[in-house]
Amino acid sequence: MQAYINTYEDMRRRLKAYGYYAWLVGWDQETEAPKGSIEYRTKQVGVMAEEVYKLQSDPDYIEAIEKLYENQDQLDADFKAEIRQMFKDLRIIKKVPKEEYIAFQVLVSQSTHVWAEAKHKDDFNLFLPTLEKVVEFNRKLVKYLETPELKGYDILLDMYEDGFGIKEYDHFFNTLKEELVSFVKEATEKKERFSRKLTKGIFPKDQQKAFSRYLLDVFGYDLNHGVLKESEHPFTSGVASIDTRITTHYHEDNLASSIFSTIHEMGHALYEMQNDPKFDDTNIHGGSSLGMHESQSRLYENMIGRSYAFWQLHYPKLVELFPKQLKGITVDEFYRFINQAKRSLIRIEADELTYGLHVMVRYELEKAMINGRLKVADLPRKWKQLMSQYVGKRPTNDREGVLQDIHWSFGAIGYFPTYALGSAYAAQIYQAMNKEVDIEQAIAENNIKAINAWLKDHIHVYGGSKTPKELMLIATKEPFNPNYYVDYLKQKFSV
Amino acid sequence: MQAYINTYEDMRRRLKAYGYYAWLVGWDQETEAPKGSIEYRTKQVGVMAEEVYKLQSDPDYIEAIEKLYENQDQLDADFKAEIRQMFKDLRIIKKVPKEEYIAFQVLVSQSTHVWAEAKHKDDFNLFLPTLEKVVEFNRKLVKYLETPELKGYDILLDMYEDGFGIKEYDHFFNTLKEELVSFVKEATEKKERFSRKLTKGIFPKDQQKAFSRYLLDVFGYDLNHGVLKESEHPFTSGVASIDTRITTHYHEDNLASSIFSTIHEMGHALYEMQNDPKFDDTNIHGGSSLGMHESQSRLYENMIGRSYAFWQLHYPKLVELFPKQLKGITVDEFYRFINQAKRSLIRIEADELTYGLHVMVRYELEKAMINGRLKVADLPRKWKQLMSQYVGKRPTNDREGVLQDIHWSFGAIGYFPTYALGSAYAAQIYQAMNKEVDIEQAIAENNIKAINAWLKDHIHVYGGSKTPKELMLIATKEPFNPNYYVDYLKQKFSV
Repeated sequence: MQAYINTYEDMRRRLKAYGYYAWLVGWDQETEAPKGSIEYRTKQVGVMAEEVYKLQSDPDYIEAIEKLYENQDQLDADFKAEIRQMFKDLRIIKKVPKEEYIAFQVLVSQSTHVWAEAKHKDDFNLFLPTLEKVVEFNRKLVKYLETPELKGYDILLDMYEDGFGIKEYDHFFNTLKEELVSFVKEATEKKERFSRKLTKGIFPKDQQKAFSRYLLDVFGYDLNHGVLKESEHPFTSGVASIDTRITTHYHEDNLASSIFSTIHEMGHALYEMQNDPKFDDTNIHGGSSLGMHESQSRLYENMIGRSYAFWQLHYPKLVELFPKQLKGITVDEFYRFINQAKRSLIRIEADELTYGLHVMVRYELEKAMINGRLKVADLPRKWKQLMSQYVGKRPTNDREGVLQDIHWSFGAIGYFPTYALGSAYAAQIYQAMNKEVDIEQAIAENNIKAINAWLKDHIHVYGGSKTPKELMLIATKEPFNPNYYVDYLKQKFSV
Repeated sequence: MQAYINTYEDMRRRLKAYGYYAWLVGWDQETEAPKGSIEYRTKQVGVMAEEVYKLQSDPDYIEAIEKLYENQDQLDADFKAEIRQMFKDLRIIKKVPKEEYIAFQVLVSQSTHVWAEAKHKDDFNLFLPTLEKVVEFNRKLVKYLETPELKGYDILLDMYEDGFGIKEYDHFFNTLKEELVSFVKEATEKKERFSRKLTKGIFPKDQQKAFSRYLLDVFGYDLNHGVLKESEHPFTSGVASIDTRITTHYHEDNLASSIFSTIHEMGHALYEMQNDPKFDDTNIHGGSSLGMHESQSRLYENMIGRSYAFWQLHYPKLVELFPKQLKGITVDEFYRFINQAKRSLIRIEADELTYGLHVMVRYELEKAMINGRLKVADLPRKWKQLMSQYVGKRPTNDREGVLQDIHWSFGAIGYFPTYALGSAYAAQIYQAMNKEVDIEQAIAENNIKAINAWLKDHIHVYGGSKTPKELMLIATKEPFNPNYYVDYLKQKFSV
């Protein structure tokens, strides 16, 4: 056993270094790499993917993982969880032909740029051939990986959210469909009115930046272990608890966008920064799953960041930065403004209430594409139809429709559903936490560190050593139940 | 032969990818990596250094380089130049005992910290034992590498500037000594007076940034293939013609510093951006030598950027950005302000006229240390004596004396002389270019692209495929001649 552990740990040490380097190349690519270097960079990424593949497919390493997996009962709990994850990941190396796998890596390293151009030009056909390749690869992938228990889209879903497949998601989204679709129609029937100062105001970037920096302090995001930068699409990128970076964006005609992007990404970042540092050198640093990750970002963004208690305390600071723009706007109006529910087109700008329905559109489209019932070329039409049906608003172009999200362009199918799941986890976690910490009071006393501490102890510290199902039991003492989410939304948005 | 070429090219392809990744890690480290991640990053860098060493010391790869070197007459000119360079680099791996080489790497990976602390505390004795080891290693190194033709300090000089040894540098510095030392004494006798607006003004960072961005346009630095960022010490970092990044710094009490740092780094960057792109995948992308690289940065910074024609055209833009600060300051006064010659202590802040003499001090000290005539412990005393003798100003402490520069602490002895050589190359190149391009007129017409084009055709396009001696012949049609430099300085600084 010890020989297998040594082999595994030695290769892990090497792969973690390759991972660190690749992580920075990705960070650079998304934040500042000059456009004219794409082709060259893509070539280097391809070469390094081969190098990493050589290591990952090293027979001694694979044997070590397999033997450790077979003898997992002799391992301590964390190491066992890690080996189970590695064994699961091994499927790709063992079952997918190397050339196809590498070709896919190269494809997706270029295709985000194709997508970006297509979105910019509102031209789905520019992106179509690339997206067809992405879907084709994913369809082949599930064939290679299928087992008697798992087939088709199930395999992709489970890849992004351990233990969740069509059955679980169908139950979840059916709950949303039954409970929310008509509720949303009602709740968004009447258009609320707000001062033109809020809807048409111009909020200079420098002051928005200053408020984002203020938020870092409020939430305890530590710049000694992170970076706040700009990118078109905000994201979090962490490599270890000691370096977890975030980006945000600033739109001068939209004050709320930078505020809630910054808080959202801090939620992701706090999760990884509060991992037990012992995981930094392992393969279970990070979150339990994408859904669990999203639960933290949504909890911070929506349940803390959009709460009345939060703005009662921090609105004066915002007014101080925008004295002219916010003159005469009360905290009550501002609170209602940032909590409007409305029928909208863009998922990342969508309010809490409608958000899950935006995701449901993507879930149904992915399911249909992977099982072959929907052609990629038909996506734009079908997208519009489902948006109209669930959210109650029909896009008139693809930029605000099927081209709005980056995910498919980097190859991820099965990822979107975790977003809605995250919000649902968050509602359940919030009510569990609220039994032990008076959350509203903590917010009102500018004591978010009490919230951070509870989340650290019940979720963050575990890193990736627990599955999301295990973690929900640890944190909330009961299995996942979407009704918390539905109840929370209905209570908040009842008119 | 073809088998050796294939072996070489395959390994080159892999090492270039590792190089690209390592380049970005370095860029990140110098510009934005959070401080709290240093230890973790250092560990990853160590692992990757091992990976690269494994590749570089691969026997098949070494054999390929040796065989190609033996048969270099069968190779085309560029490939031949590359193989000669690779063969030269191989000497270290082949002749220096691995343990000593690794011990030295470990030493210099720590010694910049020792140096920084010693400089901070102005305590040479803190740095002395480390510097003694650095000198000792370099003295052993030249023993290992010596040949009937090259011995001692010659070997180190030639390592940093191909074809330049004591004979060449003695001739160069003796010319400076004879022609400039007394000239400088005279030229710096009278202290010029300037408006307090220039000497004590505060120039906000945002406007300085705007002017730096303006300069990018003026010089044709293409952000599609580069990045302008901030760092404490400005530098250029290029990986290929398609991605050559620069940094600058902004000091609100020193307007000139950001301007000339930006132009200086653009000079370095334009050199690499204008390399023939075919070199991007080879080991001869970049510059011919350190001296040649410095010639480009100094030519752009001093001969273009500090010219009267330049400021006649661009000073109004500067006034537009700093209307209050520059009110009443004429372009003539500004021009004189940025071209003051004075006796100073710090090399990197020295003016054009005295700069070469600062370097001469270091050259003489290095030569004496390597040939054993000067003990490291005697450096501070000797430094002060030579500064007084050549520059006419005697440091009263070591922080502004022997401890000011980082270079020795990272092990580099023989590097400094290339700085002075660069300015001298620049003067000779300028006069050659001026026969074909009316430089002042090009500047006055905001047509720096005409200058870029000449430098591209005569220098930049060759990348590292020519030695500096070959390149001087190509560009100026005669061998290097330091009199151009002396004449240029005397003409510009005659009172």
